[in-house]
Order: sequence, then C-alpha cells, then structure tokens
Amino acid sequence: MTNLTEHLQATKRASRILAGLSEKDIETVLRRLADALERDTEIILKANVQDLARMDREDPKFDRLLLNRERIHAIADDVRTVAGLSSPVGKVLEERTRPNGLKISKVSTPIGVIGIIYEARPNVTVDSFSLCFKSRNACVLKGGSDASFSNEALVVCIHRVLREASIPAEALLLLPSDRTAVGEMLHARGLIDVVIPRGSQKLIDFVREEATIPVIETGAGIVHIYVDKSADIDMAASVIFNAKTRRPSVCNTVDTVLVHESRLGDLPRIGELLAAARVRIFADKPAFDHLRGSYDSSLLEPAKEEHFGTEFLSLKLSIATVKSLDEALAHIQRYSSGHSESIIAKDQEAIGRFLHEVDAAAVYANASTAFTDGAQFGLGAEIGISTQKLHARGPMGLEALTSYKWIVRGSGQIRP
Amino acid sequence: MTNLTEHLQATKRASRILAGLSEKDIETVLRRLADALERDTEIILKANVQDLARMDREDPKFDRLLLNRERIHAIADDVRTVAGLSSPVGKVLEERTRPNGLKISKVSTPIGVIGIIYEARPNVTVDSFSLCFKSRNACVLKGGSDASFSNEALVVCIHRVLREASIPAEALLLLPSDRTAVGEMLHARGLIDVVIPRGSQKLIDFVREEATIPVIETGAGIVHIYVDKSADIDMAASVIFNAKTRRPSVCNTVDTVLVHESRLGDLPRIGELLAAARVRIFADKPAFDHLRGSYDSSLLEPAKEEHFGTEFLSLKLSIATVKSLDEALAHIQRYSSGHSESIIAKDQEAIGRFLHEVDAAAVYANASTAFTDGAQFGLGAEIGISTQKLHARGPMGLEALTSYKWIVRGSGQIRP
Repeated sequence: MTNLTEHLQATKRASRILAGLSEKDIETVLRRLADALERDTEIILKANVQDLARMDREDPKFDRLLLNRERIHAIADDVRTVAGLSSPVGKVLEERTRPNGLKISKVSTPIGVIGIIYEARPNVTVDSFSLCFKSRNACVLKGGSDASFSNEALVVCIHRVLREASIPAEALLLLPSDRTAVGEMLHARGLIDVVIPRGSQKLIDFVREEATIPVIETGAGIVHIYVDKSADIDMAASVIFNAKTRRPSVCNTVDTVLVHESRLGDLPRIGELLAAARVRIFADKPAFDHLRGSYDSSLLEPAKEEHFGTEFLSLKLSIATVKSLDEALAHIQRYSSGHSESIIAKDQEAIGRFLHEVDAAAVYANASTAFTDGAQFGLGAEIGISTQKLHARGPMGLEALTSYKWIVRGSGQIRP
Repeated sequence: MTNLTEHLQATKRASRILAGLSEKDIETVLRRLADALERDTEIILKANVQDLARMDREDPKFDRLLLNRERIHAIADDVRTVAGLSSPVGKVLEERTRPNGLKISKVSTPIGVIGIIYEARPNVTVDSFSLCFKSRNACVLKGGSDASFSNEALVVCIHRVLREASIPAEALLLLPSDRTAVGEMLHARGLIDVVIPRGSQKLIDFVREEATIPVIETGAGIVHIYVDKSADIDMAASVIFNAKTRRPSVCNTVDTVLVHESRLGDLPRIGELLAAARVRIFADKPAFDHLRGSYDSSLLEPAKEEHFGTEFLSLKLSIATVKSLDEALAHIQRYSSGHSESIIAKDQEAIGRFLHEVDAAAVYANASTAFTDGAQFGLGAEIGISTQKLHARGPMGLEALTSYKWIVRGSGQIRP
C-alpha cells in the first residue's frame, strides 16, 4: 500500500462525513471560503507569481495561469453563487407503492469521491472543489504542474476553512504534480468513483485509454451550422459570426457551415461580418466560387477533405454546399462529434427533422451554438460539457455530480 | 478494416433508422416477434438440442441452457410485456425558457448501439433484443458459445421479423463465438456506445479491465441484514429465511446477518427456519455460543475472517454480533458491495439512519433483499442490476437504456 492509497482512503472516509452534513453547514462553509479567498489574496498572488515566473509570457497558457485581484474576486463570487444553489442531493426522483405495500423511492445521493484532472488553470481548483462540496462529494484534484504554487496556496486556504468547520480537510485531496500519481488515480477502484478530465483532447484521450475507473468524457466540439433554403439570411450571418468569433478557442465554436445550394448567392453577406473579424475560410468549389471576389482573397482557400470534421479552435471556418436537408444531415452524421449543431431555417418541418434526427448533446434551431454552457442553460454552474451519452450529456451542472439510491420501506414483506 | 468493423458500421446505421420509427411500429414488431418465436418453437428446440448434446447434464449451466415449449412460451410472453410498456424515449425531462427567450428542453433519446455480453442463457438473447429495440437502440450481442445453435436460431427468427417490417436486420448483430470478436467489441469506440456484461464476476472483471468504451457494471451482491435491538424477531426470522433460501444463487441473496448483542438470545428462533433449509452457518463467537445446542451441529461452524465480505451464492450464511447500530453501519461500510442492505427494526430513528447512511443501490427497512429486481421495483422489465453509481444504479429498466439531448429553439439569439 502506497502513501497515496492511504490518502485516498482518508478522502473516501471524508466523503461519508460530507454525506451527513446539513445543507446549512454546506452553504456556510462555501460562503466562508469565498471570504477567506478574498482575505488571502496577497498570499495567493505571491504563489501565482512563482508559477508565472516559470512560464514564457508568450505562451498561450500564460493568461489562463494568471491571477490578479479581479480574478480572485470573481473566483470567490463563483463560490458564493454555488453556495446559493439548491442542493442536488436528497431529491425524491420517483416514488411508488407496490401492490404488496412496499414503499419504494428513488432518492438522489452524492456520488462519493470525484477525481478531476485539469491543466494549468488555478480557478478550476476552486471551482471543482465548490461544485463537488455543494453536491457532498469529496474530490481528488490533479492540476497542471505549471500551476502548482497557485494550487497549493488555494488548497491551503480551502483546508483551513474546512478545519475551522470541523470537517476533515481530506475532503479535498490535491495530488502531487508527478505522473505516477495520475496512474494510480486512474486505477483507484473502490476509492475514486469517477474521474472527469477537463482540458485538451490529448489529456482526455489519455484518461480514457488508461482509466479502469469510470470516466465522464468532456471532449472536442466539431460544430456545424446548417443554413437551410428557408433561412433568414441576416439571422444566419449574425449567428454564424457569433458562433465563430465570440471565443474561437472554446468547444462550442462553429467549425463548418453547411449552405443549401439555393442560398449560395447569400454567402457574400455572411462573409462580410466574417472578413471583418479576419476569419480564414476553407470553402468547397461552389462556395468558393460565390465568395471569390467579395471575400478577402488572402483569407479564402479551397477546402480540402481535412477541413471537414476538424475542430479548429481558432478563427478558421470551413464551408460545404449541400443539395438538401438530407445531405446536410448526412454530412453532420459523418463529421459531427455530437457536441452542438444548429439549423437556421423558417421551415418548421426542416427544423423539426433537424432537431429530432441530429444526434448531438445540444441541437439548436435559429440560435448560436455559443449557448452550450451550464450557466446559459440555466444549470447554475458547470463542471464541464459531456460528449458521451451515459450518465450526463452536454453541459453538466450539480445534478451530474449525483447518483441515486432506492429506498424501500416495508412491514416484513418477503418475496414469494 | 475488418469484416466485423463493417458489420458494426451497419449496426450503427441501423440504430439511426430505429430512432426514426413510430412507437406503433416498435410495438407491432415486438408482438409479431412473440408470435414468430412460438411458431418457430420446433426449429428453436432442435437447435437447442444440438447445444445440449455438447454439455454434461450435471453441469449447473445445463438447466440455464435448456429450452422447452413452456420456456419458449414464457420468452414470447416477456416480449409481449416489453411491447406493452410505455416508450422511454421522447420524454421531456426538463423544460425552461431563458430570459433571452431561448426555449430549452431536455428530451430522452436512445443511446444508440448497446453491446451485451452474457453466458449460455438463450433467453437473454431475446430479452436483450426486445429491451434494446423497445428503447430504439440497436444491439450487438455476444452470447456464451455453449448456446451458439440456440442463439443462432433465435436470431434468425428475429431477423426475419425485422426484414418483414422493412427494418434493417443489422439492428441486431450476433457476434461469432470466438474471443477476437469480444476484444474488438470492447474497443469499438464510436460504433458501440456502451457495453453491459451480464454474468459471472470473472466476465464482468474482464470487461471492465479490457474495455475502452463505457461499461455499465452489473456485479456481485455482498448483502447484509441487520437485526436491530428493536427488531420484531418473527419478522427478522421470516425475512432472513426468504432472503437466504428463495434463490440462493442470485445476487440479492443475503450473505451476512448482523445481530445486535441484545438479541443474541433470539438467534435460535431465527435458526429454526434456516436449519430446516439446511443452511450452513458461519457464526462469530457470541453467535456461535447462542446457536450451539439448538442449531444442527453439522451445519454450524465458527466464522473466520474470510466468511465476511464473501458472496456465497449458495446456502451459506455468516453471522456477526454488533454492539450498536454504529458498529453495524461500520461493518456494512467495510464489507458491502453496495448492492442491497436491510435493517429489521421498530425504532424509527435507527431505520432513518440506516436508510440514509448505508451507501448501496437498494436500502431496505423491514423487507427482504430478494425484492432487488426490476419487475419487483415496478420498472416493468430489467436489463440487469447496476452496482456502479454512474448513469444507473440498482435494477435497470428501459430508462437505463436511454440518454438525452438538449433541444434549443430560438429566434436568432446570439450570446453576448
């Protein structure tokens, strides 16, 4: 038995204590944590500077790693928001009395111990803890080693608040940065109930291949917007612009626009906004022919096969022409990662078919795919966006951090 | 690309067609299947005889493999029951309108393609197909090689009924018996959405270790019944007898009785029924002392450590003495597999604590653990009993074979 196993066992024991806390305790601890984070601002910033000193300023990770007063305040406010959400556990999900008099109810419970692996983003440390704690789960966190000083400072603060409330600090276990710990974590059967990787596709693939404990995958979004022959073209232009340029580096960003051939003539109007944001377009032959001349030629290229089914995560967009709704559905079926898909159309039949037939976590009619997000969906908070179909799909709120049990009350019933 | 990959791709395509069928189509096909199975009785029995001829009559698997007229009729009737259940897909699980006017609904959907691996029980072939089909999932079945002739005959019948209804027969893919197929199945990422092993712990362990696609585990039941100091002893005796002897080989059978020390004097009364069924008891020192003399000495042994935390699957039972409810809870926490646990008590506080604190799929007060079963819980049907906490826990009905998607209807909304 390694030292880590002992730590994981202590976390498992702590999870049982969390399950027994009152909702008032939970809320109080989270509000105290928010205050404590703000009080510890100087200490946290000092630790963050140590992390930043090891990183190149030009590295795109630099900004994600960076903390300042405003960001710490925002992190604390997020904790207050989570504190105020209604508890996801103890809810009666179903209830029935059987003919033999057994009273059966299905009641939501914590999952137990949740493992989260993420990259160098210190805010995820606090965020993950607060969501797990609110749902009365203990958590095992493995953050990116680039953020180790920041994470350590944040966890010291969390542990102090827990101890002051007489809750075992083991309810949050921060793993050391080395790789061995990750390997053991992914095989900690009976000690960690589920692991959620939050980060790059490479990280997620590694976790899926390696883990023998259950995984909730959060993954790539290869996102399409289909401009139907019945589309309002101004709406299409505005939705595509928003879905591409609002935050090009996130998973709900559009990658491919499918244009009904009857609307090819409208492509230059869609292009106007995109060119202003300097979006690089990879267009198939018909789309290319309709954009050539109007779209900035330095930003327009003929599409190759590799431009479809690709998550660009940058200001790049591919365009394919389709002859029909069916062709659009077939394209999506072939290339989609099942994240977010949208149709722009007035035709209710086309909308109905699209929403029913497209197999994705979120399917939209006449709206930007940028809304695929827990807060935007009204879930109050988000631990990630699941691209799998089991347990949770799409934006995951607190409910995704719960299981349930069947409670059966009888008066001596035996089964014939 | 292997031949099997092509078959799996065809099954994936078929799953999309199932998603589009009407509920009436689904029900009609299942009713026709029930009739067809009965019409094909002679053919199926002939195939079954070929399987039986290869197996030793004394093998405990022989009875599970055996089909006869009555059993085929029962299988057909089960299909009719599933046909008549209400559809688990297309249900609006949540619905809200956001301040920006977006109408968001969470709607249940099929999962897609479900893989099921099981042992030599031909009834599971029909059962698995009918539950998957009712929930509009395609399925990939891998049955025990001992049942290959029977399974082949059943699948020929199912395929014929599908084809007559113009539904692609690929909606059910029966894998060849060899091991290579299983390996490929467990790594069929993107083609099989989940795999459910139904059978021995060895099979389940193998699937969990090997699979890189999601698994729903169905597993061992290490089941406890706690006799509280406030217990009605006649009720305790009757519940323990039922939970031990009704079907000793199944997972909801009790393995360990925990007795409050104040009730040790009542053990002989509990023993009366158990001795009549020739239950072998492994008792700790205090329990042994109270049973000695009254319980058949050839069936009574002092308990060793190995008798706790063991799933006996036979007429064996261990008994441990506890000083308090807390000690009972600690014993269960240490040894339980999280399947089914029961308390026999009149004291409402003890009952409340037990039901809240025990971490198991099904927790009972004053009832036999033999009720942990989909039909008994009123789920209409059962695909297995999950011992994991993600997606589904405890008896899994049709709902466990569904996922959901978020449908978002807008009027051009973009995200600020």
